[in-house]
Order: sequence, then structure tokens, then C-alpha cells
Amino acid sequence: MNDLASLETPALLLDRTRLDANWKRLSERIAALGPGLRLHVKTAKSLDVVRRLHGGQPAPICVSTLKEAEIFGRHGYRDIFCTVALAPNKLARAAALAASGIRLKVVVDNVDLARSVAGAPIDVLIEIDSDGHRAGLKPDDPRLIEVARALAGGSAALAGVMTHAGASYNCESVDGIRAMAEQERAAAVHAAARLREAGFPAPLVSVGSTPTATYAQDLSGVTEVRAGVFVFFDLVMAGIDVCSADDIAISVLATVIGHQEDKGWALTDAGWMALSRDRGTAKQRVDQGYGLVCDASGKPLPDLIVVDANQEHGIVAHRSGDPARLPDLPVGTLLRILPNHACATAAQHERYQVLDGTGRIEAAWERFSGW
Amino acid sequence: MNDLASLETPALLLDRTRLDANWKRLSERIAALGPGLRLHVKTAKSLDVVRRLHGGQPAPICVSTLKEAEIFGRHGYRDIFCTVALAPNKLARAAALAASGIRLKVVVDNVDLARSVAGAPIDVLIEIDSDGHRAGLKPDDPRLIEVARALAGGSAALAGVMTHAGASYNCESVDGIRAMAEQERAAAVHAAARLREAGFPAPLVSVGSTPTATYAQDLSGVTEVRAGVFVFFDLVMAGIDVCSADDIAISVLATVIGHQEDKGWALTDAGWMALSRDRGTAKQRVDQGYGLVCDASGKPLPDLIVVDANQEHGIVAHRSGDPARLPDLPVGTLLRILPNHACATAAQHERYQVLDGTGRIEAAWERFSGW
Repeated sequence: MNDLASLETPALLLDRTRLDANWKRLSERIAALGPGLRLHVKTAKSLDVVRRLHGGQPAPICVSTLKEAEIFGRHGYRDIFCTVALAPNKLARAAALAASGIRLKVVVDNVDLARSVAGAPIDVLIEIDSDGHRAGLKPDDPRLIEVARALAGGSAALAGVMTHAGASYNCESVDGIRAMAEQERAAAVHAAARLREAGFPAPLVSVGSTPTATYAQDLSGVTEVRAGVFVFFDLVMAGIDVCSADDIAISVLATVIGHQEDKGWALTDAGWMALSRDRGTAKQRVDQGYGLVCDASGKPLPDLIVVDANQEHGIVAHRSGDPARLPDLPVGTLLRILPNHACATAAQHERYQVLDGTGRIEAAWERFSGW
Repeated sequence: MNDLASLETPALLLDRTRLDANWKRLSERIAALGPGLRLHVKTAKSLDVVRRLHGGQPAPICVSTLKEAEIFGRHGYRDIFCTVALAPNKLARAAALAASGIRLKVVVDNVDLARSVAGAPIDVLIEIDSDGHRAGLKPDDPRLIEVARALAGGSAALAGVMTHAGASYNCESVDGIRAMAEQERAAAVHAAARLREAGFPAPLVSVGSTPTATYAQDLSGVTEVRAGVFVFFDLVMAGIDVCSADDIAISVLATVIGHQEDKGWALTDAGWMALSRDRGTAKQRVDQGYGLVCDASGKPLPDLIVVDANQEHGIVAHRSGDPARLPDLPVGTLLRILPNHACATAAQHERYQVLDGTGRIEAAWERFSGW
């Protein structure tokens, strides 16, 4: 642990061995099922992380912001799918990306947006609502054909359909996730078939979320799977059996700075600014507070969680609230906090401190934020 | 609104007229009560904002990170109080700040930390727990004198006591906040008296939070008040009558990108990455979801809130859930979202788009993040 003692806290740690294993497991799984795997870089937001996963070669990615597209585009990535519909105020930037040689794909789910993008030299996928959780047209919605028509005649090319079964995060069993994966697949395949029957091209059928990608049993008709969280995993994913806590590749290093003995609290210097305000496990079977506490080697301390967080203070306590069950954690003790939500926690940091298989720091990988 | 239409969304807006008024109101109030006002810069994290408030001249500030101290220190600020206890791994940086000519103040609440800072050329305040919400020694704790003794003999100077009644955020009435302010004052003054009786110096008696600073009626014995959130205010503060929604100086500009008509949803491009995951109003009388929705001029749209948020999507709906009560918000409509928690929302952004009194953009003020 000498290497960790050289860091100032809070710091974001990345276990490279777990990262590699997470990538290998899912990419082999999806390859065996047939489709391509398009990595969502919104979780890592780091060239170094994505290069590592792709073996150094640019590969198809998806992004949640044009800033991600621009940064990866400047570094050789050419097939970039922005999975958040673009407000009209972003179209000039999108067109500039396309003009720079990037094959940019965007989503629309309404005629207004379709008309606004129709003049840009980009590929357009129509978003399908497979689970009722957010955006998209239901696969049987008559407006699917209207949107396809609104795209015609300009520089944009209708490229197919996409859907994201984000509701899979709320499934309460593996069987539930398997059913959601089939619902996601069927919705996208059906919508693509409707477009083709109406005479429109729909070569791409893009689906995905980390839970459905992990448990899908059949991806017939799907051309690509999108996922991002799986590279790091987190407690929300562990809470629905998509991973185990031992697969979680990122953690926040914190130092004990004080105690309230009567309450059974150890105070640390990792508050919500370092952990994020995400409370994604609050409605799961096991509420992990603001994160699960591990020792400096990454081994979970039984039932120790971050029960509350202020901006730069975390409050660590036993899940039971029993002061007698707080282990001895002297001032200066280093702890690692596993995050509820990898995307949210990583977004609070400017870099990853990368640990090799022996717990030594082998690199610092920069990440970016903003739009 | 032509100026706002020139922005890409999401963007963080700062109403400079409200900022100025918020500063004037509280600084005049505290001056009338006697103590100094030490601005907490952890909310704004922006030289431009703080310079504006202090009329361009460096003044005493408090910080939550050494990065804040370093950045303000490089720009002429000399009296800097770091209100988060420093883990031993940060002491070398703190000593370097002191060596650069900054009068650095830090907090401790235990003998271990007191010993670790005793050798550094810094001022030390002992943290007092006035409300049971986080760190600090109870004013009557015998260890108060032990901590003072542990500081003696080195380069560090015991400078007094500090407390922060963060529990005031959970008060349910103005009378409750007034009582909390008196509790905060009395705890700090009593602890300082105990130190003086034991022969230790305690020239500084530092208290504060935005709610208690707003409603304190007597600050006898207090030498300075610390507050930060009041410069921007937020929905949590409005929910406990510390401000009104019309005082809130920051908002997130978002664009409508789609709808789910059957659910009464308008989807925007401001998700939790732009709003933060903070749900501080969830336990208040009125739950504001992920934020209160205003039109582009900043006027609240009755009972319209962000009911849910994904990374880059916000879901806007009527508080009742009634689809018929969603107003007409065509794709492309600009909205402003008032934040639950100013510190958390501002932290998601790299700059403020500053609006003058007529709603025109007069500047972009950079902010920073990290540790």
C-alpha cells in the first residue's frame, strides 16, 4: 500500500485488471451472440481507458455529448454515434464533425428534430421506446414512418433504429433482465421491419444497456449492442446481480480525518464532491448509502457504508448504526469507497490513478468533462 | 432572449443582479450584528465571482480544498481558512501555502490531527460540534483542552474555535433556524471561554451557515461568520424560507428535445450531469424533483419540475403527473432549471454565463473543480 500512501485524498482509483476482465467478458459474450459491441464512452470519458479496451485501435463508439465526439474524433475515431438527441443549437457543431471526416450518427424520435437534422451530412437512427423509461417512439407508433419521411430529401441518411432499455436497471431478478433484453431486441427489430416494409432503409439495429447486454440470450436481427457502465461496474449493477462487488473497477480513495465515537462514525475526506450525490442503491434490496467501504487493498469491510455525505466530508458507519460495530479506523487510515454509479462518481474526478494487479500505481489517465 | 439562443445547452446561467443583491443583503446584515463576514468560496469556485462580491479587493475567505486555497492564494488572497480538516497526506501542500505568505487557517477536532499539524507554520482552530450533524468536539468535551495542549510547542498557533451548524438546513421553521443560530453561537463562545480559562489563546470565534447567518439575532462573542450558498441560493434554501425562488441566482439552461405525450413529459438535454444528482428537496415540504422549471426569462412555470434525470436527459412534467397540465413546450423551447443545491449544480459546470439585469450575456466567468 505504499503506492496509495503517496496519493492525496480523495483520489479516483482504477483497477486495470478488473477493467480488462470486464471488457473481455462482455465483448466475448456479445461476439458469440453475433452483433458488434459499440462501447459507450460516456462512463470513462478518457482516451486512455478506451484505447486500452480497444487494444490501441480506434473502433466504433457511442457518446453522450459532442465534446466526447470531438475529442475522440481528433484522435482517429471515425464511427461515432451520439445517443442523445441533439437540440437544434448543437447542429452546427455536429455538421463540423461530419465535415472533418467523422461518420457521425445521431438519434431523433420526432418530426421536428428530424426536419432540423435533415440538412446535415450525418446518419440518423430513429429512437424506439422499448421500455417506457425515457425517449423514443413505441415500435408500432404511426409516427415512425412520418419521422422517416421527414428525413428524406436532405443530406442526412436514415440508417436504422436504436433503443436503450434503461428500465433494466430497475429489474429485480436475472429473469427480469433476460425478459427485458428480449423486449428491447423485439422492439428494435420490429420497428426496423416496419421501416423496411415502408420502403425505408434500416441497416442498423442498435440496442443495449449493461444489464441487457450481460443477460441477453438471443440477439437475432440486432446489428450492434451498446454498453458503457460494464467497463467499471458499480454497486447498482451489483445490486441487480449484473456483477459482483469484486468486479467493480473504480473506487474513491479516502482518509479518515476524525470520529464521533458516540455515534459510531468515522469521518473521511471523501464527501459527495468525490463520491457524487448518486443514491442509486436507495431503492434496491440493499441500500449502500453513498458507497460501500473497503480497506486500502480493496477488500470490503463487512457492512461498512458511507451513511451520509457533505461536500467534502463522508460519514462512515456500520449499516446497523451500532457504534460498537465500527471497526478501529485510526485517523490517517486509508479506505476505498465503491461507488453507487460509475458514471456519476467518475464524473467528479479529473483523472484515474491506475492500479496494476499488485496494487501499485502504474499510470494516471486523464478524463474530461463538460459539453 | 436572443442572447440565450446563442448558447449551446446545457449551460449554467448566473443572474448578476441577484448575485449582487444576495451579497449586499447578507453582508449588511452581518456587519450590523458586529462580526466580519468570511465568504466560503466552495460554492462559486470562481475568482470572477468572488472578486465581484469583494469589489475587486482580496478579503478573508474560507475554502473546502487546498486547490481553492492555492488558486485564490496565487491571486492575492492572504487570509484563507480551510474548513475541512486536512488528512496528513495534505500537510506538505498546506505548509507550502503558508511558506508562500498566506495566513493559512485549518481545523482540527482530535489529538491525532493536532499533533500532525503542530509542526506547520499555520493557524489552527478547534472544531466544535454545535448541532450533532458532523465533525467537532462538544463544547464541554474534556478533549478540547487536550487538543489545545497537543498543538503547543510547535510552529502552529492555536487561533480559536469554529463551528458550522449544518443541521440548520433541516430546520422546519424560521424560529427553528433562529434557535439553531443561538445554539451555534453559544457553543462556539462557550468553547472559546473554556480555552481562555485554561490559559490558551482563542482570539477567533468563527461560526456560520447560510441559514443561521440569515436569521441570527445576536452574535455576541462571535468574531466572524462564514457562509457561501447565500451568494447563489437554491431550492433547498427556498424550501426553508431562507430565500425565495426569485433570489436564486443560478439556473441551468436546457432545450426541449422531445416528448412522451401520453405521460405528460417534455424531455430536455439537461440531465443529472448538468443538474447534479442532488435531491436535497426530497425530504422538504415541497419536493422539487431535480429542479424547478422556468421559462427562458427565468419566470417559474407553475408546478413544472424535473421529475427524473438520466445522464444527459431531463424529464420535465407537471408536479401532479397529469399529462393535461403540461404546457405547450415545442421542441427547441429553452427552459431554465433552478437547482436544488447551488454547490452541487455549479460543480457540474466549467463556467458561468453571466446575465445582466436585462437578461443579456455580459461575460463568461470560469470556475474550477478538483482538489
